[in-house]
Amino acid sequence: MTERVLIKDLAAHEDGIVRVSGWVEKVRDQRYVQFVVLRDESGAVQLVNGGVLREPDPENPRSDILVPRTTTISELTQGTFITVTGELQHNERVKLGGVEVQIETIDVVAASLPENPVADDSNIDVRLDWRFLDLRRPEQNLVFRVQTTFLNALRQVWIERDFIEIQTPKLMASASESRAELFEVEYFEGKAFLAQSPQFFKQMAQAAGFGGIFEVGPAFRADHSFTSRHATEFTSIDTEMSWIDSHEDVMELHEELMVAGLSAVKEKHGEAIQKLFGVEIQVPERPFPRIPLAEAKEIVKERGYEVPRADADMDPEGERQISAYVKEKYGHDFVFLTDYAASIRPFYHMLNEENPELTKSYDLIYNGTEISTGAQREHRIDVLEAQARAKGMDPEELGFYLDFFRYGVPSHGGFGMGLNRVLMLMLGQSSIREVTYLFRGPTRLLP
Amino acid sequence: MTERVLIKDLAAHEDGIVRVSGWVEKVRDQRYVQFVVLRDESGAVQLVNGGVLREPDPENPRSDILVPRTTTISELTQGTFITVTGELQHNERVKLGGVEVQIETIDVVAASLPENPVADDSNIDVRLDWRFLDLRRPEQNLVFRVQTTFLNALRQVWIERDFIEIQTPKLMASASESRAELFEVEYFEGKAFLAQSPQFFKQMAQAAGFGGIFEVGPAFRADHSFTSRHATEFTSIDTEMSWIDSHEDVMELHEELMVAGLSAVKEKHGEAIQKLFGVEIQVPERPFPRIPLAEAKEIVKERGYEVPRADADMDPEGERQISAYVKEKYGHDFVFLTDYAASIRPFYHMLNEENPELTKSYDLIYNGTEISTGAQREHRIDVLEAQARAKGMDPEELGFYLDFFRYGVPSHGGFGMGLNRVLMLMLGQSSIREVTYLFRGPTRLLP
Repeated sequence: MTERVLIKDLAAHEDGIVRVSGWVEKVRDQRYVQFVVLRDESGAVQLVNGGVLREPDPENPRSDILVPRTTTISELTQGTFITVTGELQHNERVKLGGVEVQIETIDVVAASLPENPVADDSNIDVRLDWRFLDLRRPEQNLVFRVQTTFLNALRQVWIERDFIEIQTPKLMASASESRAELFEVEYFEGKAFLAQSPQFFKQMAQAAGFGGIFEVGPAFRADHSFTSRHATEFTSIDTEMSWIDSHEDVMELHEELMVAGLSAVKEKHGEAIQKLFGVEIQVPERPFPRIPLAEAKEIVKERGYEVPRADADMDPEGERQISAYVKEKYGHDFVFLTDYAASIRPFYHMLNEENPELTKSYDLIYNGTEISTGAQREHRIDVLEAQARAKGMDPEELGFYLDFFRYGVPSHGGFGMGLNRVLMLMLGQSSIREVTYLFRGPTRLLP
Repeated sequence: MTERVLIKDLAAHEDGIVRVSGWVEKVRDQRYVQFVVLRDESGAVQLVNGGVLREPDPENPRSDILVPRTTTISELTQGTFITVTGELQHNERVKLGGVEVQIETIDVVAASLPENPVADDSNIDVRLDWRFLDLRRPEQNLVFRVQTTFLNALRQVWIERDFIEIQTPKLMASASESRAELFEVEYFEGKAFLAQSPQFFKQMAQAAGFGGIFEVGPAFRADHSFTSRHATEFTSIDTEMSWIDSHEDVMELHEELMVAGLSAVKEKHGEAIQKLFGVEIQVPERPFPRIPLAEAKEIVKERGYEVPRADADMDPEGERQISAYVKEKYGHDFVFLTDYAASIRPFYHMLNEENPELTKSYDLIYNGTEISTGAQREHRIDVLEAQARAKGMDPEELGFYLDFFRYGVPSHGGFGMGLNRVLMLMLGQSSIREVTYLFRGPTRLLP
């Protein structure tokens, strides 16, 4: 049998017999000719049956072949997976890629039910119910190709720097962040919890002398919110490194990673993204703008928006505003907000030596939305214990974590970044639901 | 301040002032000279303090510098993280790398408690209690460098083939494999379950027309066993691809991945593995031997071992025996056992057309232990439903999975492989506990 050819490779393929496989996107069953638009993971092509014969014709020597072929094509439902062999012909008049395939044989691998439960105007919930059909859209296919390229580019930066890839456990004996958003697991006779982040374990790698580490894996938050940015399970991109002088070192690594990721995406998928999403991928210039949070709030206020929060934090509208300001002033899609108040940061962030009300930390904002939090971590056990106590935490419960610091640990820092948020903002999508393979929320566990 | 130099780079560095950072492995505090062995993530080096001065000496103009430095070094505990600047000197007589650093300044970043809870002869449970200290051993550091290189090599094979990286959810509404080994999660007002494998979701990618996909992520099994090969959470390497003719296509991809992974590991870490583990990494020849399971059981029986099982399956000793046979006969570390009986395989494996008692599936055995199961999957909905029913499964509960097959799906297959088992067998280790960053078992959730 001839080898299967990917549809994207047909244009460069010489005329002659080819085999293509994919699913039926459209059938035009005309009186004397039948057309099938076939899509595979790489593209779409027009298949043609010129030998339409609807009734047996004793005068036609190929009647036994033509009638069943015509019938098969007439009965094809949208979504049916087929394998076709036929004659590839280059033809400039064919709008779809400039080639078509004259069908010789057609093999129905698995027929689709005729009623497609997803329509072009179906809302997101219907589309998520039938995610596997929704994912057949070229835009959706592209999202995950972009994800693949982006993650690979990040990993190459880490590997070039000799960072170690770790897989931290998602089953824990206690909380890694806030008790409130913790999923509980029945664990034999006892309980376990799902990791809200690999925070404690990636810091453990520092005590273990690993130097730099990275991980891409799931994180879980029992967060009962239904915004476009939240999920109960999401993919977290994490890195941590030793021997830093401040969070500035972390921001520099962060910049390097974003530039590498976006450059690779632009190079490999820039045209397709432009075509399918109408978005021009921007590779950011380094350094990214940095604005202390207090200053950012002032800037936002001058723009007429007063952040309606009692604490020192930003809110989503404030993030959009400061992002718009940075875009106008510096033409930049990214901004580091720095120097968050200790009162709104976790106990393990290091305090600023000159102003202990502030932490050596940052959030990274991309096209108006926060995608990441980074910081230098406090590595001095006495200071760390005091900070935990000051936050009202129980050092007893944190025992296993605090132990990491009792046997020596280098200065270190890192960040965690939500993959789905990055993709959403990169591709101009309205919700992480659009860029998550299978979204999980408080009321969604299926499919 | 001078830039930090990694210890492995000192030998190629010119003599002069350098800065090194790491943890104290050993101190030799002699009367007139002090030696410190400093280790970082890349290696170990000897630091020397020739200017030992224990009491203030008004005659010595550098007394104010020398006394505190001498005292600091005297008080160094093993494991303490320090940064040292000093004069790098190449010296062939220094056994440790042929270089040493004459200490100028020493900065204690975080001191270690003096009592190391892990001794050289501590058993595995003590070492796991203090995993972050255990991981400081060069062998352990190497394990995770090997993991990094191995995974990266696999991913490059997939990316070259245009496979898509997916992140499947670990929270599910029902079981993906066996109900017995399922962890239950409190999910708001209801229940969720932890994915035992990405099986259903990677097949969904086939219905979605993704073509080839891969994932490296956690999988969870509520398995109350304490063998050297089992964990309640492990890293699963998964791939799945469309348009295969049989499981033979899957085995060929599997071979290509193992050859790429082992070649990369041998090239980058072969020498270090030889030195620290006494193991010579073997890059396997293709094709790997293939033996139908029934034949393998005959061969094992001829070697004097009768597999003590009522069903058609192998057991661990049988796997060791057939592996030994293959090693003797073909000099090969790998063997595919093929044609498993349908009675001992999941309902979604495709049956052999010529003998429906058998499946189009395989296990891959590496150095005596199973590391992977692969198969062509049944993609015809009517056949699939019948097979599920024949296994006594409830098609109702499988509804969301069976839906994937009702709207068309290509022929497809893939495999899942345990990363930790591969590393254990590659490095000649006795347990996956040794090669898992943080092992999770029925009685272990900490640290």
